[in-house]
Amino acid sequence: MNNWLDIIKWDDSGLVPAIAQDVRSGEILMVAWMNHEALALTYEHNRAVYWSRSRQKLWYKGEESGHVQALSEIRIDCDADVVLLQVEQIGGIACHTGRRRCFFRVLQDGEWRVDEEIIKNPSEIYQ
Amino acid sequence: MNNWLDIIKWDDSGLVPAIAQDVRSGEILMVAWMNHEALALTYEHNRAVYWSRSRQKLWYKGEESGHVQALSEIRIDCDADVVLLQVEQIGGIACHTGRRRCFFRVLQDGEWRVDEEIIKNPSEIYQ
Repeated sequence: MNNWLDIIKWDDSGLVPAIAQDVRSGEILMVAWMNHEALALTYEHNRAVYWSRSRQKLWYKGEESGHVQALSEIRIDCDADVVLLQVEQIGGIACHTGRRRCFFRVLQDGEWRVDEEIIKNPSEIYQ
Repeated sequence: MNNWLDIIKWDDSGLVPAIAQDVRSGEILMVAWMNHEALALTYEHNRAVYWSRSRQKLWYKGEESGHVQALSEIRIDCDADVVLLQVEQIGGIACHTGRRRCFFRVLQDGEWRVDEEIIKNPSEIYQ
């Protein structure tokens, strides 16, 4: 019953970008990548599983930090080459910098301004 | 004064994915790609300008359809390889299929279900 995966248009590396959106606030928490297996596992385990391009292995989000993303919904776009997850961010921290979300820099007057505080020091998250 | 662009980590094709989020509803409308020039033009003109990979040219969103995306905010993520736009979607239709947003398919019981209606027939949008 994995034929829902056949519709996905993987890129040349066999990946698609996956957006994690907070199901309650609607905020975009992060964007990561998924391969076929990661997306299948995400659905199977009801939690976000990505493909780490830097480590070249499956990345069960929260496996080290405990900041699991509990799955609420999976969507795809019209071209079937982007995945959108609605998630509950356990621990309230999605970013490896210890911030709520990865999009903590906003462009103002031609400069990037950080407008999200560090909730927890990364050295405390990844021990 | 374009040095804010220097922080962006373009991929091997010189592109980054750009997410367009509705500034009012928080809904993800679409994901497209930007090159250096597209992002610079987006900021300069206060409207979303993408790079069309299929047509290999700049794509002023709404140039044909009139469905311009008026820019409210630009963010980047921690890796500086994804752009997040807050936009006002003029005409209320972001998708080329005539729907409000491109993410109109949701996974339910192992099948993709369409849950967004077609607001306007594409043949009426692109004449």
